Amino acid sequence: MQITLKELAEWLEGEVVGDDQVVISGAAPFESAAPDEITSAFRPVYLKKISDTVATAVIVPQSYLAEKSEKILVRVKNPYAAFAKVLQRFYSPVHPDGGIHPAAAVSSKAEVGDEPYIGAGATLEKGVVCGNRVKIYPGVYLGEGVQVGDDVVLYPNVTILKQCHVGSRVIIHAGTVIGSDGFGFAPDGEHYQKIPHSGIVVIEDDVEIGANTTIDRATFGETRIGKGVKIDNLVHIAHNVIVGEDTLLVAQAAIAGSTTIGKHVIIAGQAAVADHVTIGDGVIAAPRTGMAQSVAPGETVSGAPAIPHRLWLRVQRIIPLLPDLAKRIKALEQKMNP
Amino acid sequence: MQITLKELAEWLEGEVVGDDQVVISGAAPFESAAPDEITSAFRPVYLKKISDTVATAVIVPQSYLAEKSEKILVRVKNPYAAFAKVLQRFYSPVHPDGGIHPAAAVSSKAEVGDEPYIGAGATLEKGVVCGNRVKIYPGVYLGEGVQVGDDVVLYPNVTILKQCHVGSRVIIHAGTVIGSDGFGFAPDGEHYQKIPHSGIVVIEDDVEIGANTTIDRATFGETRIGKGVKIDNLVHIAHNVIVGEDTLLVAQAAIAGSTTIGKHVIIAGQAAVADHVTIGDGVIAAPRTGMAQSVAPGETVSGAPAIPHRLWLRVQRIIPLLPDLAKRIKALEQKMNP
Amino acid sequence: MQITLKELAEWLEGEVVGDDQVVISGAAPFESAAPDEITSAFRPVYLKKISDTVATAVIVPQSYLAEKSEKILVRVKNPYAAFAKVLQRFYSPVHPDGGIHPAAAVSSKAEVGDEPYIGAGATLEKGVVCGNRVKIYPGVYLGEGVQVGDDVVLYPNVTILKQCHVGSRVIIHAGTVIGSDGFGFAPDGEHYQKIPHSGIVVIEDDVEIGANTTIDRATFGETRIGKGVKIDNLVHIAHNVIVGEDTLLVAQAAIAGSTTIGKHVIIAGQAAVADHVTIGDGVIAAPRTGMAQSVAPGETVSGAPAIPHRLWLRVQRIIPLLPDLAKRIKALEQKMNP
Repeated sequence: MQITLKELAEWLEGEVVGDDQVVISGAAPFESAAPDEITSAFRPVYLKKISDTVATAVIVPQSYLAEKSEKILVRVKNPYAAFAKVLQRFYSPVHPDGGIHPAAAVSSKAEVGDEPYIGAGATLEKGVVCGNRVKIYPGVYLGEGVQVGDDVVLYPNVTILKQCHVGSRVIIHAGTVIGSDGFGFAPDGEHYQKIPHSGIVVIEDDVEIGANTTIDRATFGETRIGKGVKIDNLVHIAHNVIVGEDTLLVAQAAIAGSTTIGKHVIIAGQAAVADHVTIGDGVIAAPRTGMAQSVAPGETVSGAPAIPHRLWLRVQRIIPLLPDLAKRIKALEQKMNP
Repeated sequence: MQITLKELAEWLEGEVVGDDQVVISGAAPFESAAPDEITSAFRPVYLKKISDTVATAVIVPQSYLAEKSEKILVRVKNPYAAFAKVLQRFYSPVHPDGGIHPAAAVSSKAEVGDEPYIGAGATLEKGVVCGNRVKIYPGVYLGEGVQVGDDVVLYPNVTILKQCHVGSRVIIHAGTVIGSDGFGFAPDGEHYQKIPHSGIVVIEDDVEIGANTTIDRATFGETRIGKGVKIDNLVHIAHNVIVGEDTLLVAQAAIAGSTTIGKHVIIAGQAAVADHVTIGDGVIAAPRTGMAQSVAPGETVSGAPAIPHRLWLRVQRIIPLLPDLAKRIKALEQKMNP
Repeated sequence: MQITLKELAEWLEGEVVGDDQVVISGAAPFESAAPDEITSAFRPVYLKKISDTVATAVIVPQSYLAEKSEKILVRVKNPYAAFAKVLQRFYSPVHPDGGIHPAAAVSSKAEVGDEPYIGAGATLEKGVVCGNRVKIYPGVYLGEGVQVGDDVVLYPNVTILKQCHVGSRVIIHAGTVIGSDGFGFAPDGEHYQKIPHSGIVVIEDDVEIGANTTIDRATFGETRIGKGVKIDNLVHIAHNVIVGEDTLLVAQAAIAGSTTIGKHVIIAGQAAVADHVTIGDGVIAAPRTGMAQSVAPGETVSGAPAIPHRLWLRVQRIIPLLPDLAKRIKALEQKMNP
């Protein structure tokens, strides 16, 4: 693909400083870009050494003023997001050739929209309804009545169990399981009685889910993943959880049953949230935070049990000093009671 | 399905208080039940507001005395377990239509019992022996010599490697792997020599295993999951582990090699047990407990390294006060040595 | 298989003490070996009670001197590694009968070397190049342009996405995903812009990877797993990570993006490393260590945030005493300010 900087800048709602007729044919990171490529100085450190990149053109913040730059600049509001968009334009993944592979097992009672790709060994049970331009890789399983929107990509060996709903433009990476039964058992003296799970999972539009993640169906009703949520690999989301829009759940995080996570939350890697609590909008939980209680909107928390991040930082400075503190207490006691 | 309260109460070994000829056609949670449904007041809070549910009939404990209830009551020993059983009766999962799909790869040297469902793309190698009424979803792999009991459900893309045994009424959710090699390597100067794993995994009757969990085969002998054990999603069980009957392992828990877990144990989410230790019967380990040592039967533990839960609670009250305590020690020292 | 001790000892570069014409027909652990088998006394405790094993022959260290042993001894440099090699000789896994199953979907534009096994439901897209003697189990997916070396074993339902490289003698256990997109999103006001991942994953020779592990492709360039690395189950390795040769990553460990792990490192179970840091050669990180910063070569660390292991041990002895220490501080204050 080739594009003039003029055209690119217009698409990004930015402005070119320099020759806007120059054609670029790729985009790459600051350190590794080639001469015919554009890069982005989305970190201040890059702005300071902007002539170090080999790229001809550099995406910079609107605030950046360079009287005599060797580079052609494309000034935008948000250079990181603009770079992501340029990368999408150049490097959107190309999926295997379209059509339904003869070795896919598509029920005659399944409906598939226009221009599908359905790979060998994929199974679509009866009642499945898929939108247009779905990309369903080999080994994917769509259970009875599963609904899938437009422009969805389901990578190999993804399992979506019956009646679950997946919105449009959703991407689910390989091996992920949507709609497994929740972990619900009633003790019956010696043994456990299984609580059947007749609810579903709803994945709203524009969600991306990593590899080998698991999202359990609700006991009744729905487990719901809000619009624009991004979930990393090996994350566990239990039955009846609600995750608000544009929230991030990083690798190996775990959300226990019936918990509600707000919008624009960030739950970092290996962090966990207990069952039946509420994590407010905009909460940031550091890696491996253990949230046993609800967290108020806008808080930043760390530690297990979770405490305010600033307090946690101060506590962590003391922890390695504990052996010394213990000695000092003993010394004080000996002085007091000689 | 429709059933009179009389019939239902008899099946639950309970008694009806009110008109036992009333017919119900479903069961649902206290808050969302419909008029023709039964619900359960298995929490005290529900008993206090029993008239709030729309359900006609309510399962209550035998101890519950209501002189003039608007509801028809079904008195049972254990209202939560009874509710689970009623839900099972109404909402047991319906599996895809039976038979062996022509696109399943079933060896001519595999034996399958009566009324099987074997989906497209499932593979049964030679020597596989399955009981009656097995439900084997698409993409399941059963290696050479794998034995599977009656009424087993294996959800899509489950892998069971050769010679492993699965008892009756076992449910294994999608993407789970049984019988992968354990993580055993002998350092040989610069590199590692692989220790082959010729043992197997035995899953006893009535076990349920979540999605994307992994259970490694033994180096020699067996990794064994006892009768009635319930395992959640993304749990790791290493080679040669023994898990006792009716134990619960919650999401993302990990059990290292050659460790023995007792009966009726609860290992909560993200908790871990070191290798070669013994966790006694009835132990409860809180979320993210790290058990580096054996734990005596009946103990409740928290923290990493694990300590008694009550002590852990007291310690956790001090942790956020550490910066303050450090200051107070300094103040004391300054007073003592002015 | 049957082999004389003479032949076995020569292969192990060891020497026989006793009758080297004795034939053995198996190998097993010290406690469970049969009379016609060889075992290994690789732990001092075994050497002390060497006559307790039923095995005829015992692998011992070169330093072991037994004037009148009932056992035939095979003296070697490293009895544990030698035992691993003997086990490999007797118990190397036998894979299903060779050939390409008619229900495998192998592109006409894929190249496969000599003596392959490719199971039912495996998919090899165009441009795939496999070496000789590959064992590709059912449900495996190899994306466009994937390269796989000689003697590679890919267990069921492994997914390797396009353009990734896998060296020779690599073993990947069931359900593992290689080459999923990294977790990269640029905030764009309210929502997130996906950062496309056009990089790949390179798995060097002699790597073994456990079940249901995930290794993300690089944003640009490579995520690279060095020669001889051994990775356990459910491990997460993010985009652009480099793992040095002969490093061990134990179950449920997580390595965040763009981090470099040295050679001969051991990252124990559930431990995690933050993004953009460097873990030096030879570092040992205890279970559940949280490495938020770089760690210098050769260090042994514990805790989260990570501190030197010896200090951590001393700190852990104080932690349960905190309620007592807090009381003692209060008592001192009361004495000082009565």
